[in-house]
Amino acid sequence: MKKLTLSGTSTRSDIYIGRGILDAVQAQCSEVFSPSRVHIVTDSTVAPLYLERVQAQFDLPTSVTIIPVGEEHKCLSTVEQIYHDLLSVGMTRKDLIIALGGGVTGDITGFAAATFLRGVSLCQIPTTLLAQVDSSVGGKTGVDLPEGKNLVGAFYQPRLVLIDPDVLNTLPESTLIDGMAEVIKYGYIADASILDLLSDYRANLEELIYACVKIKCDVVSQDEHDTGLRMILNFGHTIGHAAEKLGNYTDLTHGQAVAVGMVTAMKLSNAMGAPCDLLPNLVSQLKQVGLPTELTYDREAIFKTLLSDKKKFGATVNFILVRTAGTAEIVPIEAETLHTFILDL
Amino acid sequence: MKKLTLSGTSTRSDIYIGRGILDAVQAQCSEVFSPSRVHIVTDSTVAPLYLERVQAQFDLPTSVTIIPVGEEHKCLSTVEQIYHDLLSVGMTRKDLIIALGGGVTGDITGFAAATFLRGVSLCQIPTTLLAQVDSSVGGKTGVDLPEGKNLVGAFYQPRLVLIDPDVLNTLPESTLIDGMAEVIKYGYIADASILDLLSDYRANLEELIYACVKIKCDVVSQDEHDTGLRMILNFGHTIGHAAEKLGNYTDLTHGQAVAVGMVTAMKLSNAMGAPCDLLPNLVSQLKQVGLPTELTYDREAIFKTLLSDKKKFGATVNFILVRTAGTAEIVPIEAETLHTFILDL
Repeated sequence: MKKLTLSGTSTRSDIYIGRGILDAVQAQCSEVFSPSRVHIVTDSTVAPLYLERVQAQFDLPTSVTIIPVGEEHKCLSTVEQIYHDLLSVGMTRKDLIIALGGGVTGDITGFAAATFLRGVSLCQIPTTLLAQVDSSVGGKTGVDLPEGKNLVGAFYQPRLVLIDPDVLNTLPESTLIDGMAEVIKYGYIADASILDLLSDYRANLEELIYACVKIKCDVVSQDEHDTGLRMILNFGHTIGHAAEKLGNYTDLTHGQAVAVGMVTAMKLSNAMGAPCDLLPNLVSQLKQVGLPTELTYDREAIFKTLLSDKKKFGATVNFILVRTAGTAEIVPIEAETLHTFILDL
Repeated sequence: MKKLTLSGTSTRSDIYIGRGILDAVQAQCSEVFSPSRVHIVTDSTVAPLYLERVQAQFDLPTSVTIIPVGEEHKCLSTVEQIYHDLLSVGMTRKDLIIALGGGVTGDITGFAAATFLRGVSLCQIPTTLLAQVDSSVGGKTGVDLPEGKNLVGAFYQPRLVLIDPDVLNTLPESTLIDGMAEVIKYGYIADASILDLLSDYRANLEELIYACVKIKCDVVSQDEHDTGLRMILNFGHTIGHAAEKLGNYTDLTHGQAVAVGMVTAMKLSNAMGAPCDLLPNLVSQLKQVGLPTELTYDREAIFKTLLSDKKKFGATVNFILVRTAGTAEIVPIEAETLHTFILDL
């Protein structure tokens, strides 16, 4: 079992990574929390697989909210359901909320924990690769509004994150592959040695997760509230989010969108001086794990959607470029320059 | 114009107090914010009085949400309305939200600002005495749920608070008196010199507001997230909240409830060793400004309601006692001891 620590501005997150840690949830929680009761939020896919195994470890009173699967349930009404469940069992500020599931479960539960009674202790137990390497770490919580994704949320660090690579054994192949897009992203933005582990990534999952989470901790510790450095984690996401949106969040998974987004961002990096071998390497790595590399949407629509993204400020777009594998740069690009580039793709 | 600064764990609030500051909103905002647009949230009572005077100062694009008056609108659906308004005008993380109004407006707007895009800059312009001396300062934001008040919220410091005592001129007499309960509270918990200014409080309002806000800044700077010292601000509120709830939030205003709560808390302080003259002094000061001093609800109902309050942890209740005017103590009292005391009142 390995440990990482994320130091926020006024909080700390302890992150443990290790096979079998799912059976030590109570033991780990008892090191940092002293609750009178525990509420677990999970979804209808994860509940039959892992809920009892976690819940049975606690001698304290426990209660559960099982949310329906799917991004369409990542909304305020699901959060309200969690509030009502918490109140019906008498949760206080001293108690503990556990998020057991993938990114949607973690984001919703994190937001509920951040805002119920102005903040209740939170432990994240991510069960997808995407959640393990990305969304469970760093304190971004949130829900969608009818107008768009993640428009409402809070920065709220889970005091504890427990990552068990063994739970990925029950993950559908396509969902595992989806998470690999973020793994490859970490390789390009911060640690090229990750790229060397891709050829046999299934055998290297624990090592890959550790390497990715370490990067996330380093970056978030320096910029918890996403005002500077943290933007490098968006490599591939600027175009990716636009593609995801154009596909109504159904044509492409998040990982697939990030994959095509990274290819586009690498082409832009090339145009701005990156060595030519980076692009074919990225494309071959994405193909190897089974991710798409071609942006199939109308270029003009991509540009318009990108401009409406919440990360846009004024006439320039902060774009993440990679000109050396393992190093990212935040480059403000004029909207018109970007427009021309995207149309020329 | 006087300035106070509240230092949070990772944020800072600059608080300016002065007659006529309402005409310097744009000037003060330009010192600390660089927005592209400004969104003002106010209510249907305050809008006709002060909205145009504030809005007209900005050269930037401005937009407005006017919320209906009343605690029943301090709910998630009002927050959703604000989110939709913010999105419809294209607000980004770099823009500014201004809360112009009393406690309900400030609490709701603060929560919307805390959670929209995970946090947008906020300026509070409180227009009631209660909001000026209490709710606009300290970063507690929140909304009610059907199950109870302030059950959802966030700690989120306004970067700027602008307090103009002149706006109190348009405040109904009863609302001004309501705020005096908190003023008297500050006198007892932290600064007895406040009590000397009560006999002609209308003439001393600016000085009183400054003295109260200074205490709040000192306390919150030491305990932003309400885990210890900040509890002293709840003097009179433990019983007060119970009384408010028993009266369905209509029989008693918040200030009236706090007034009778302080009297009860002072009786408990007496029972635990306070000098006997404190109680008659408190009662006469409350009567002088026009606040009630008698707890008229069923004692058993008060105790039960108090125990269900979110501030209760386990078998003891943290009670705020005043045994010397100007000094508060947080005393954990066994629930059964409190029960006996309340029944004996």
